[in-house]
Amino acid sequence: MVPPVEGGDAALLPEFPRGPLDAYRARASFSWKELALFTEGEDMLRFKKTIFSALENDPLFARSPGADLSLEKYRELNFLRCKRIFEYDFLSVEDMFKSPLKVPALIQCLGMYDSSLAVKYLLHSLVFGSAVYSSGSERHLTYIPKIFSMEIFGCFALTELSHGSNTKAIRTTAHYDPATKIRDPKTLLPMPGVMVGDMGKKLGQNGLDNGFAMFHKVRVPRQSLLNRMGDVTPEGTYVSPFKDVRQRFGVSLGGLSSGRVSILSLAVVNLKLAMAIALRFSATRRQFGPTEEEEIAVLEYPMQQCRLLPYLAAAYALDHFSKSLFLDLVEFQRGLASGDRSARQAELGREIHALASASKPLASWTAQQGIQECREACGGHGYLAMNRLGVLRDDNDPNCTYEGDNNVLLQQTSNYLLGLLAHRVQDGACFRSPLKSVDFLDAYPSILDQKFEVSSVANCLDSAVALAAYKWLVCYLLRETYQKLNQEKRSGSSDFEARNNCQVSHGRPLALAFLELTVVQRFHEHVHQPCVPPSLRAVLGRLSALYALWSLSRHAALLYRGGYFSGEQAGEVLENAVLALCSQLKDDAVALVDVIAPPDFVLDSPIGRADGELYKNLWGAVLQESKVLERASWWPEFSVNKPVIGSLKSKL
Amino acid sequence: MVPPVEGGDAALLPEFPRGPLDAYRARASFSWKELALFTEGEDMLRFKKTIFSALENDPLFARSPGADLSLEKYRELNFLRCKRIFEYDFLSVEDMFKSPLKVPALIQCLGMYDSSLAVKYLLHSLVFGSAVYSSGSERHLTYIPKIFSMEIFGCFALTELSHGSNTKAIRTTAHYDPATKIRDPKTLLPMPGVMVGDMGKKLGQNGLDNGFAMFHKVRVPRQSLLNRMGDVTPEGTYVSPFKDVRQRFGVSLGGLSSGRVSILSLAVVNLKLAMAIALRFSATRRQFGPTEEEEIAVLEYPMQQCRLLPYLAAAYALDHFSKSLFLDLVEFQRGLASGDRSARQAELGREIHALASASKPLASWTAQQGIQECREACGGHGYLAMNRLGVLRDDNDPNCTYEGDNNVLLQQTSNYLLGLLAHRVQDGACFRSPLKSVDFLDAYPSILDQKFEVSSVANCLDSAVALAAYKWLVCYLLRETYQKLNQEKRSGSSDFEARNNCQVSHGRPLALAFLELTVVQRFHEHVHQPCVPPSLRAVLGRLSALYALWSLSRHAALLYRGGYFSGEQAGEVLENAVLALCSQLKDDAVALVDVIAPPDFVLDSPIGRADGELYKNLWGAVLQESKVLERASWWPEFSVNKPVIGSLKSKL
Repeated sequence: MVPPVEGGDAALLPEFPRGPLDAYRARASFSWKELALFTEGEDMLRFKKTIFSALENDPLFARSPGADLSLEKYRELNFLRCKRIFEYDFLSVEDMFKSPLKVPALIQCLGMYDSSLAVKYLLHSLVFGSAVYSSGSERHLTYIPKIFSMEIFGCFALTELSHGSNTKAIRTTAHYDPATKIRDPKTLLPMPGVMVGDMGKKLGQNGLDNGFAMFHKVRVPRQSLLNRMGDVTPEGTYVSPFKDVRQRFGVSLGGLSSGRVSILSLAVVNLKLAMAIALRFSATRRQFGPTEEEEIAVLEYPMQQCRLLPYLAAAYALDHFSKSLFLDLVEFQRGLASGDRSARQAELGREIHALASASKPLASWTAQQGIQECREACGGHGYLAMNRLGVLRDDNDPNCTYEGDNNVLLQQTSNYLLGLLAHRVQDGACFRSPLKSVDFLDAYPSILDQKFEVSSVANCLDSAVALAAYKWLVCYLLRETYQKLNQEKRSGSSDFEARNNCQVSHGRPLALAFLELTVVQRFHEHVHQPCVPPSLRAVLGRLSALYALWSLSRHAALLYRGGYFSGEQAGEVLENAVLALCSQLKDDAVALVDVIAPPDFVLDSPIGRADGELYKNLWGAVLQESKVLERASWWPEFSVNKPVIGSLKSKL
Repeated sequence: MVPPVEGGDAALLPEFPRGPLDAYRARASFSWKELALFTEGEDMLRFKKTIFSALENDPLFARSPGADLSLEKYRELNFLRCKRIFEYDFLSVEDMFKSPLKVPALIQCLGMYDSSLAVKYLLHSLVFGSAVYSSGSERHLTYIPKIFSMEIFGCFALTELSHGSNTKAIRTTAHYDPATKIRDPKTLLPMPGVMVGDMGKKLGQNGLDNGFAMFHKVRVPRQSLLNRMGDVTPEGTYVSPFKDVRQRFGVSLGGLSSGRVSILSLAVVNLKLAMAIALRFSATRRQFGPTEEEEIAVLEYPMQQCRLLPYLAAAYALDHFSKSLFLDLVEFQRGLASGDRSARQAELGREIHALASASKPLASWTAQQGIQECREACGGHGYLAMNRLGVLRDDNDPNCTYEGDNNVLLQQTSNYLLGLLAHRVQDGACFRSPLKSVDFLDAYPSILDQKFEVSSVANCLDSAVALAAYKWLVCYLLRETYQKLNQEKRSGSSDFEARNNCQVSHGRPLALAFLELTVVQRFHEHVHQPCVPPSLRAVLGRLSALYALWSLSRHAALLYRGGYFSGEQAGEVLENAVLALCSQLKDDAVALVDVIAPPDFVLDSPIGRADGELYKNLWGAVLQESKVLERASWWPEFSVNKPVIGSLKSKL
């Protein structure tokens, strides 16, 4: 049971300063502190607070409003900060095993401060460090402490100039050790035959230095090869525990699954921050009103509610999903570590791969669209760099394409489902998976006979309605995709062509709908648990229903096309249910972002501060910028009377 | 008739360099030169070439790849460039009257070089200059030459910290003269009581310095008031030719219509540039293939085609629409200038206002989404700043919110249509408008009885199919919105509440569908003119059909809901028609962007260069950046052996 708020540490969840947001806070249907405790638990809240306080009190992390940081300076700062995070040692290995969710929580806290920092820390510790740890053998273990003190630092090199998604076709054939021992550790100059350089400025995440490395006949000591998956004997013979080249490649790529789950969680962070900024702005910004004298908060407009609140619900639903998927991954990795070679373990790996491959696209796109909506919903204030919506959007953007382009990744998920259906059709196998995400498909013939039968908005305000519709939708898309694929093959297309021709209209929506269903299902179960405090049930139920119905409404054309919907009423009920839920949630919106927003120092957005003093904070931030009231340095050139030296010159 | 290509100046449309794009260029179904001549005409092509060549040959406009320009430096450059554009005097007043389309063409050329430059030039000449010219009286005419030499420069101050959309509620009550004569012209220091400052960095358009001005009991000479619309006599009496306050306010805002049409055209520029970059990239980037040995251009994938080609079609359709709407505006302004006070002139004003108010949202959002799709479709290459997709997105972004927030503006259009229907219902008036955009509504009862009856993809590949569907859709949404509005009012909502409650689900889609119909209608008529050269008819027809059907497909749920679509086939035919058109257009895609892309110097994107040498150009650009192969300046701090000075210190 969640401890009562009164029992908690008052310093853990301090009161917000009084101000213009009081009105909405007073109208909330629930206590934000209770929801924070229910969602995170006291131990996790304390852990996050420790991290945030450390950052706020460390001058290395001081914010520099309005500073026009150079690329080089920003990278240096980010490097120093990353090193400092290792020094803080927020999370002991023991803690990590006891509370695995603290791993993504740490990454999320860093991401709330700065995405570049989170990604640098993640790449260095979890990708580089884990690669050495899990792919290396005993002789590489000496690197581990050096990695965690950043005495040596890693880079991640999987793509070539001409190869990104198609990593199998990569043309670099030398075995490359990602440890930096290819550079001279004293001078950091590249070793002979190696050329390293910088790729230049990116749209975002510029605290990270993306570069290139070229290898021309470089000699790397045999011992440098991370040799757990494959080795070269002193005689030059290649040996591997895996017989099949494709299987070996698959195992080497296995490390990427955790990358996708991390990206899912970073996308959620970006969305949460944007929602906090835009909703606090919307609750304090007034524009127009019922009379010429009175202006109302823009959050009172159904338009503003419908633009923002579905994304707030998405932030909650996806946040829960990212945690639950991370725990599934932990289970899988524990199996790996314990040498589990059961069929269940293999199936679990496939299921997690399918879920992770679609969850990164869904979360990164939801965040991309949500942040863009937030930026527009804040108008010109949202366009000011200081309010941070631009940085959030730009830092989130690569989530859509790295670690697998979203559209390419979705094929992994649709292929997984198609494979299961083929197995069922050809061998009569049941739909069964360790996490049960596909089990419902076993009843697909009867599910396909169902129709939407909700005739009133009141009966539609529940995620159970959306769940039923989603199950029908996934069955429908799966059958259609399977038929289309077979039809393509029968008409002479190769497997490659057939899949390409099915992906746009069938495979892609299938993968997304399946993942949306899984997210909705897990959040629905979460908010309907018996342990949910009674006072939180209404608001959580609404969030769950809103995310579910809003996501579903984007598939309305397919629901009609396949016959699940018919008549004018079905579409109207769905649309009106979304509107009604937005209206019901608008008074809870500020309290809901109070739960997910980090402290002001971390949020770093004048229009999103917890005191709601929109104009005072904005004005304060403008005046803090250097040179705000100064003329530009080049003004004398352009005043009507040129300066004396100019006049003298023209006289000479 | 369009002159044959052979008759044109070979230097006007030079051949592209040979290279990897040759294969697609050879497969095109038409001559890009013929399409360029048909679309622009020789005189306009020459005009644009003059501008582009001037920029390319002037060191002030030199591109600085990889330079990390400071905010201040960028603004200075932009100011200098704007001044230089006035010096070039590309467009005489005489030319402007003879070929009015050269006005937006000039802005578009500047926008292709840099959005900040186009907007600065536009604000200074067309907004500030026009305001002084059209709202001032004789005593202000002396400012005009000084404005065009940039001896005095203007700023545009319509919003307050707390008032953007709701300009009527603005709290600054002093009449303010936008001329900078409030500052001392010798020192550029503000006059007493005036505080001016800078708002800081924005997400984009940072060549423009957005600032604030505060006026505290400032005395402005009476003569400074732009007094054509209203004046103050020496005795202090306010006099105006307009009796009604609301009418006067409306007339003062009239100048904004041309602003919206200009934004429409700048959004189209951004979309064109992004398409040129992404499609040339897609035609040269190879990834995966039917066998392990062979990789194919990513443009061959239906997924890539369907992500990009509809936006290419949108760029063509919206480009045509922006020109035609500009010509309508010219007609209206000529009427104003000649003192036309006819009912037709007033109706024309209302119709243009309704069209402009929805066209800015449609174009800016289409560009926003299209550029984002381009950025993602180019993967990590698209994420590199040097390839320009980020700048295009960021510079386009404010188009969604300034000169009227998109969602607020759409109400102007839905209100216009609702007003016409009320007039018809209450007074039996016909639907008639000067530009005929609403005339079809006169038959709305019979249109609403129509059904979609196209049963094969082959019969669907025509914009006429979409036109019929769009007419039904607009009639349906208009009727539904009207009914919903009246129902809201009958149930006791105020006019303000009733409109707010109808906007999300009814008014907004109504306004967008109406504008899409108008764009589709005009482009359909344009490409079906008898004067279209036979060799261009197929490709233009496909572009028109693709834009129309793709736009329509996003309303598929409404088409089903209202009963225009029924059964599985309707939705399938529409979806498959879009896929088929994408496939038919993919071999024409490179030639189609050859028509709209500016010269490489202006396009300024290594992956989008006309020679298609993707990796060579990218590599060249990377190596041109300063310090590309250098270690960061702060490296000695972090090498394993700290530098001597560090060691010495620790020994002391």
